[in-house]
Amino acid sequence: MLNTLTYLKDPDTIKPIFWDGETESIKVIDQRLLPNEYKIIEIKTVQEMTDAIKNMTVRGAPLIGISAAFGMVLAAKNKTDFCEADKLLRESRPTAVNLMWALDEMQALLKTCELDDIKTIYKKFLTKALWILEDDIQRCLLMSELAANYIQNLFSQKISQKQKLKIITHCNAGALATGGYGTALGVIRTLADRDLVEMVFVDETRPRQQGARLTAWELAHDKIPATLITDNMAAHIMQDHAVDFIVTGADRIAANGDAANKIGTYGLAIVAKYHQVPFFIAAPESTIDKALADGKLIPIEERCHTEVTIINDNYCTVESGINICNPAFDVTPRELITEIFTEKGRF
Amino acid sequence: MLNTLTYLKDPDTIKPIFWDGETESIKVIDQRLLPNEYKIIEIKTVQEMTDAIKNMTVRGAPLIGISAAFGMVLAAKNKTDFCEADKLLRESRPTAVNLMWALDEMQALLKTCELDDIKTIYKKFLTKALWILEDDIQRCLLMSELAANYIQNLFSQKISQKQKLKIITHCNAGALATGGYGTALGVIRTLADRDLVEMVFVDETRPRQQGARLTAWELAHDKIPATLITDNMAAHIMQDHAVDFIVTGADRIAANGDAANKIGTYGLAIVAKYHQVPFFIAAPESTIDKALADGKLIPIEERCHTEVTIINDNYCTVESGINICNPAFDVTPRELITEIFTEKGRF
Repeated sequence: MLNTLTYLKDPDTIKPIFWDGETESIKVIDQRLLPNEYKIIEIKTVQEMTDAIKNMTVRGAPLIGISAAFGMVLAAKNKTDFCEADKLLRESRPTAVNLMWALDEMQALLKTCELDDIKTIYKKFLTKALWILEDDIQRCLLMSELAANYIQNLFSQKISQKQKLKIITHCNAGALATGGYGTALGVIRTLADRDLVEMVFVDETRPRQQGARLTAWELAHDKIPATLITDNMAAHIMQDHAVDFIVTGADRIAANGDAANKIGTYGLAIVAKYHQVPFFIAAPESTIDKALADGKLIPIEERCHTEVTIINDNYCTVESGINICNPAFDVTPRELITEIFTEKGRF
Repeated sequence: MLNTLTYLKDPDTIKPIFWDGETESIKVIDQRLLPNEYKIIEIKTVQEMTDAIKNMTVRGAPLIGISAAFGMVLAAKNKTDFCEADKLLRESRPTAVNLMWALDEMQALLKTCELDDIKTIYKKFLTKALWILEDDIQRCLLMSELAANYIQNLFSQKISQKQKLKIITHCNAGALATGGYGTALGVIRTLADRDLVEMVFVDETRPRQQGARLTAWELAHDKIPATLITDNMAAHIMQDHAVDFIVTGADRIAANGDAANKIGTYGLAIVAKYHQVPFFIAAPESTIDKALADGKLIPIEERCHTEVTIINDNYCTVESGINICNPAFDVTPRELITEIFTEKGRF
């Protein structure tokens, strides 16, 4: 297994967020522009970080958490009121619980800083945010190793016959959704490192096309065989191609194991069940919200309707006057999830 | 129930194809431009009709059949070789069996024309094509009446409590997919005429967005309450909104009742089954291919991959080098279909 240091030092790995020590600044990949443009932008203020989370410059539950932690570093650097900064960041997006988790971590640290001057707090916050980032990568690596071992064992008979695995994934739960390496895509990366992947079918993931734009980009980057499909093709692919398993990330998992993830995950899980294809979720422990008894209690973000009707700011696909719905997530009940992998094993 | 003549005379009904007697020409709505532009174009030759079917200027199984019949009228008008014309049209698209049905009808007529001069054949072909068009509308009206009666009866308890129906449809099986009025959307129109429709959730229908572009346009035209959703939202909508039933069209139905329809129909039917939501298909008898024992034998058209990656000729959503899949249809097994409605009742 890779370790975090090796991962971070490798110039070829995808780093969606990083601290630039020379300029003392936070830099992120602008994920709205991929794959057409690879652009690193600097985030200078709490407001800018809040906007970056809201407008999905950075997205993916674990990365949202990490970004919020760095947002608090910016609060300390710019001497922004901590209470206000916490509120802004906390309200940026409602579904991913990792956001609340990371801000709670920073708040807990702040409580220990009562006697410190702002410069010391800034240093402590930076150390903590960097720890959260590196820790997330470590968790991704560990989760991926554990899940890949489990999956390799599950398909040992097939693998012993020199057959490789066909996988479907939805949205992007890759390096771009985390500190690095990824959750669902981390599992796929580890299996690909073991030369066990025949094909990854990538759901386009409407309306924001994170599958087509981000997951396909990551898989091409890592030279893992991939085929782009529209979301509504997944059932046909399972019927026709004998898919071995599905793996996705999650944005919040309730105490009973119900999991909120990108819209379309629930339908995919139903279709998987019908075809008796195992449906896996890979997510760090910080995604689990033990305070929520079940998935019905998870708040589902309704996003701007133009995400559905306008693509790339220039194409209106629908007659005016029609209603539009744009829930960003759905909830998959535990009964449809074969296993939930975390860095601590199976949940 | 409306009759065909009333329907055709009403200036407000959507007429996707019509014979312009004054100029002796065939005119169609260019469906590729809707809803941004409503443009009527003239089709002058067999080759132009073949192209119009291939590039989806006209689409929808019944309309493809009607268009092919008019294609043979053009063959007679232009003195194109009938054998060549038949071949061109027949090979334009592989899945919709109505295409073969309509061409078989024209071929059967041609066999009775051995002693006729070309001008007489042209007149006979035109009469036949106009009959196929009007007959299709008649069948749509009848099918919609029968299906609406069945559905009204099925939900009689709910309706008696003054509650209306929530429906999901996929792709476009409306006036634009037929001679007029529509199959699945015809059923919805008839229910709306009876003031029984609370909401139609319209699947966007990637990759060509016939739901967003065409069905939403038709429903707005008829002032029927509609909400656009991306395909992957349907499961969430069923979980959240207590959808009463789903109705779609079909492109070819095998003898055992397996039905090919626009990609995404199969997954939608699985999701409906999971939620115990009735899943209906509405299609004319000409959609039934008794020569095919089951759905596995239905040829599935693989369309151009840029339909998936490029929207409106200007947006590449995917990293180059990635594979792409673009099956235009999928096959829903009979076990997932609650009822198939035709103009002759339930199949």
